[in-house]
Amino acid sequence: MKIFFEKSDFDEVKKCRTMKLEEKLSVIADMIRLNALNTIICAKSGHIGASFSAVEILTVLYHSEMKIDPSNPKNAERDVFILSKGHAAAALYSTLASCGFFPTERLATFRRLNGLEGHAEISAPGVETNTGSLGMGISKAKGFALSAKLDGVKKSVYVLVGDGELQEGQNWEAVLSASHWKLDNLYLLIDRNYVQTDMPVERVVDISPIREKLKSFGWHVEVTNGHDIGKILRVLKKIRKIRGKPKAIILNTIKGKGVSFMEHPVALKSGKGFYKWHDKLPFGEEYRKAWEEIATRIKKKLARHKVPIAFPVFRPDLAEKPPKTGESLVEAFSQILVDVGGKKKELIVLDADLAESCGLREFQITFPERFVEVGIAEQDMVSIAGGLALAGKLPIVNTYAAFLTSRANEQIFNNCSEGSKIIYVGHLAGILPAKPGKSHQGIRDIALLRNIPNLLLSAPSCKEELRRIFEFLVFDYDGPSYLRLEHNIPRLQIPWKEQKLELGKGIKLADGKDAVMIGYGPTMLSEALIARQMLEKDGIKIKIIDLPWLNRIDEEWLLRETEDFETVICLENHSTKGGISEELNRILGRRIYTIGIEGYGKSGENGEILAYFGLDAESIKQKVKKWLGK
Amino acid sequence: MKIFFEKSDFDEVKKCRTMKLEEKLSVIADMIRLNALNTIICAKSGHIGASFSAVEILTVLYHSEMKIDPSNPKNAERDVFILSKGHAAAALYSTLASCGFFPTERLATFRRLNGLEGHAEISAPGVETNTGSLGMGISKAKGFALSAKLDGVKKSVYVLVGDGELQEGQNWEAVLSASHWKLDNLYLLIDRNYVQTDMPVERVVDISPIREKLKSFGWHVEVTNGHDIGKILRVLKKIRKIRGKPKAIILNTIKGKGVSFMEHPVALKSGKGFYKWHDKLPFGEEYRKAWEEIATRIKKKLARHKVPIAFPVFRPDLAEKPPKTGESLVEAFSQILVDVGGKKKELIVLDADLAESCGLREFQITFPERFVEVGIAEQDMVSIAGGLALAGKLPIVNTYAAFLTSRANEQIFNNCSEGSKIIYVGHLAGILPAKPGKSHQGIRDIALLRNIPNLLLSAPSCKEELRRIFEFLVFDYDGPSYLRLEHNIPRLQIPWKEQKLELGKGIKLADGKDAVMIGYGPTMLSEALIARQMLEKDGIKIKIIDLPWLNRIDEEWLLRETEDFETVICLENHSTKGGISEELNRILGRRIYTIGIEGYGKSGENGEILAYFGLDAESIKQKVKKWLGK
Repeated sequence: MKIFFEKSDFDEVKKCRTMKLEEKLSVIADMIRLNALNTIICAKSGHIGASFSAVEILTVLYHSEMKIDPSNPKNAERDVFILSKGHAAAALYSTLASCGFFPTERLATFRRLNGLEGHAEISAPGVETNTGSLGMGISKAKGFALSAKLDGVKKSVYVLVGDGELQEGQNWEAVLSASHWKLDNLYLLIDRNYVQTDMPVERVVDISPIREKLKSFGWHVEVTNGHDIGKILRVLKKIRKIRGKPKAIILNTIKGKGVSFMEHPVALKSGKGFYKWHDKLPFGEEYRKAWEEIATRIKKKLARHKVPIAFPVFRPDLAEKPPKTGESLVEAFSQILVDVGGKKKELIVLDADLAESCGLREFQITFPERFVEVGIAEQDMVSIAGGLALAGKLPIVNTYAAFLTSRANEQIFNNCSEGSKIIYVGHLAGILPAKPGKSHQGIRDIALLRNIPNLLLSAPSCKEELRRIFEFLVFDYDGPSYLRLEHNIPRLQIPWKEQKLELGKGIKLADGKDAVMIGYGPTMLSEALIARQMLEKDGIKIKIIDLPWLNRIDEEWLLRETEDFETVICLENHSTKGGISEELNRILGRRIYTIGIEGYGKSGENGEILAYFGLDAESIKQKVKKWLGK
Repeated sequence: MKIFFEKSDFDEVKKCRTMKLEEKLSVIADMIRLNALNTIICAKSGHIGASFSAVEILTVLYHSEMKIDPSNPKNAERDVFILSKGHAAAALYSTLASCGFFPTERLATFRRLNGLEGHAEISAPGVETNTGSLGMGISKAKGFALSAKLDGVKKSVYVLVGDGELQEGQNWEAVLSASHWKLDNLYLLIDRNYVQTDMPVERVVDISPIREKLKSFGWHVEVTNGHDIGKILRVLKKIRKIRGKPKAIILNTIKGKGVSFMEHPVALKSGKGFYKWHDKLPFGEEYRKAWEEIATRIKKKLARHKVPIAFPVFRPDLAEKPPKTGESLVEAFSQILVDVGGKKKELIVLDADLAESCGLREFQITFPERFVEVGIAEQDMVSIAGGLALAGKLPIVNTYAAFLTSRANEQIFNNCSEGSKIIYVGHLAGILPAKPGKSHQGIRDIALLRNIPNLLLSAPSCKEELRRIFEFLVFDYDGPSYLRLEHNIPRLQIPWKEQKLELGKGIKLADGKDAVMIGYGPTMLSEALIARQMLEKDGIKIKIIDLPWLNRIDEEWLLRETEDFETVICLENHSTKGGISEELNRILGRRIYTIGIEGYGKSGENGEILAYFGLDAESIKQKVKKWLGK
């Protein structure tokens, strides 16, 4: 059953002789919008709000303005488009498919293993660069623009950024030298939808006036309605003639545009100030309403002009709400933060626009004066924490592990060099959830931090251990620390009860005689425990140790726990390079086997990704049997 | 012999009844200037130009405006000053000493082991935060300012940034939320000296108009003459009353102010567009001239008002030019870059305001159209390189290893995830030269990059190996790579001649039977070779292998080279965590001994730092004997 408009459908619209260009583009935009909705629904994951606000500009660029060559995406003569706000990937992929860069059916593979990656990536024909972590797009676009200038090639380079994204400092590095270099082949398009993640930009960290800012950085700036195709066409035509300056268009848009209840003015009202449709999905009836609203608009116009298109079929089964499978550590973290915050008055929580996702909302509501929202500005956040700590506060720094430990690495190092007590919480650590893809997968964080001399790294495997570790870090430990927080709900809860938490020592979760397995965090320990059950049926008994301390290991304890075993296995929800297996290796001075992630992360369902990287219970079982020669 | 003005001397000036405040401060400023000059001369290292431009503002703050308590530097009531442009450390230290935070004699320990660190650090009483890598100061100041607001404490927080420093993106993250939060206890002071490193800011990447930029970011902005004490006093008085906004003062200053031939208008002319006194020192006659110029001004004023001060003694012996001890890899790199650049037309060199130091000037002059100066904007530079590579160019990305691999880590990861061929050159890698201190010491770079799956890491030990590796990376290798370039001139040139360079394999530099030592780079291999000579006298023969490939090691080769040895030793000019010893450990699956850096880097002379970290030949000898039980 056809669920996406196909390239031929778009061609039919373009061929229509009774529609004017603007009307055609407006129908195409809605067709792309419907495809984007279904892309996200099929994936059961993605960003509707930010995709919908960008549909018209994408349509204008790809179906009218840009020199493109879908049959030869790397054609040297082409114009270039970069989606800096890579989370609007569903809109970009749908646009590319509408042009024929790849078949529309491929949209159904969004966020699946070996399908379309969860944020825009070059593995999809037509995508020019990998994005997903914000703030890099303008710089990358400058690389293309500079290259064209050097080669004397006429080429327009367009880059679409979010308005909230402009909080990221790299953008301002980028716009500064763009004007210094007079890059007049560079077009900065700002999707000014006024809402970042789930709150209005002006409530997070106001970015207005954008126009004056860019002007003071030497840019030519225009402002227009980002959903009015005629206006977009006219402003593009106008600025194309301007020479000697890079050019920006502030596109005033609506987050969730095209579905009444998802449009931000309405949605913010119904959400009591919070915007629901950033990364939440419409299930059941909501999906039907959204689908029908867009479909009706398209049908009406197609009918009026008698465009012969076989309309996609509405598939309510795609939008069944997945059952909740358990409690994630982040929910527990949310509560612990409030509890501990109540006892420790110096505790201040810092957030970089991921409050909901990082479980900080409860603290924000309970202790608003001790909640600091810095916007999408990880480096600033970390260094602010540095200042707060020097002034006697206890900052708890939150964002995704992937961003925190790489984007703000030098700032963390600098703070640690002062010895300040700060707790860095690396959220969404590990390979799961995998749907967002490599930009969001925190599988390098241990390697990036383990070399900072006085930074203690820890990784809880369950709610109770999280509480104990966090309380230890807050009340008993005097120095900077990192809390590695996996958000993934494991297949099995880690059986951790009245254990004693001792710095440097791990906790035995299961006994065994044939091999000892050492791991951390809920995902891998859960898979290990399941693998252990499977192996037991084959007469193999594996001892499993939860080691929540990643770089401060009691060497005597470790030697004692492993001395009876010829086979020591380390489980890493992390790259095999730079993780704790190397720490164990050094201490033990003998071969240890590592089950961890080789290569780059990938988008996919949890199960398929664990299997792909050989991290699931079945793979663990196979490897153990091989290593034991059984 | 007294070479610095002492606190009592400054007190005498303050006590003088015939001088007005402005005149007193102006004498004090010159006294601080002379102390700063001598601080740098004693260290034979430091930043005169940037220190001299900041002297008047520091004098006004510390000797007139700020609530300070030198006997209790952490007094909760104090005002806070942060030197974001941490390379002006000599000026700050001299100012703090003039107030009595520590004895002026300590200025003679600048950049020496356990003395005053090479960039401003909190180990010196009165320094509020560690700086050295640019762009973090405003964020840190915000931490102090926020904390004061939370506690309801009246406190002014001042932060001094350089004008070139404003190219760094974190500043714009910082100024954005500062105004969103209405931090009116925050004072941003911009040392607008118009010259960054050795070139005018407007030629690097123009930052003007700073006033309009800050205004568009919601700040109150004033502009004044940064050497006119009266004007500075008046503008501070004026803006103190302004509420609800953070406040900035653009201080128009002169780099090298106070010594006629160092002042940038004159110096730029005599340097044919390049400013010499950023980090170069005046030796011999030049030192005498500089000293006398400042001293004469002070003496005249002191005499006029009969202030009884025992004037410091001029010590020409301090300014003897140190002999050049050999050729550094960076000089060779400079030539190789031009040679290879001539053959490879796609090659583009990117620089982040360190062209001279990174040996890029020759390329810049030879191929100006293929030289891209991005200013102090490492993240932008790396992502521009990403765009250039996607557009078919071969970017060579240059800056200090410490900045490149930590500040732009996520951007490097992002580029690598696209598979693009880019050569990242990590300059000033390793612990030496140590004088600049931990912010500049590249001893975490391997750990920060080794986990990027397809990034090849290499480290040449001599000129010839550098050439072979660079040619290999440019002409024969298809993928991203990192070239780890030590700038230190080793005590002994590595005897590398007609060797064959093979990816994954090392080169035997010396034979032996008692132990095998594996290392990389000139510094440690040179120390190892010297240690070997010493050990030979004791009848111990050590095999030494130069392994220029840090993360792509031919396992068979390694096993073969080490199988005859019970004792395998790895030399790391890097942290012991995350370096190649862990790579060797994993491959060999047995205990290996590591000689590397434990803890944070430190300022100091080369010899004393190598000895301090146990990396010098003598320490290597001792350790080897211990490990061999001899």
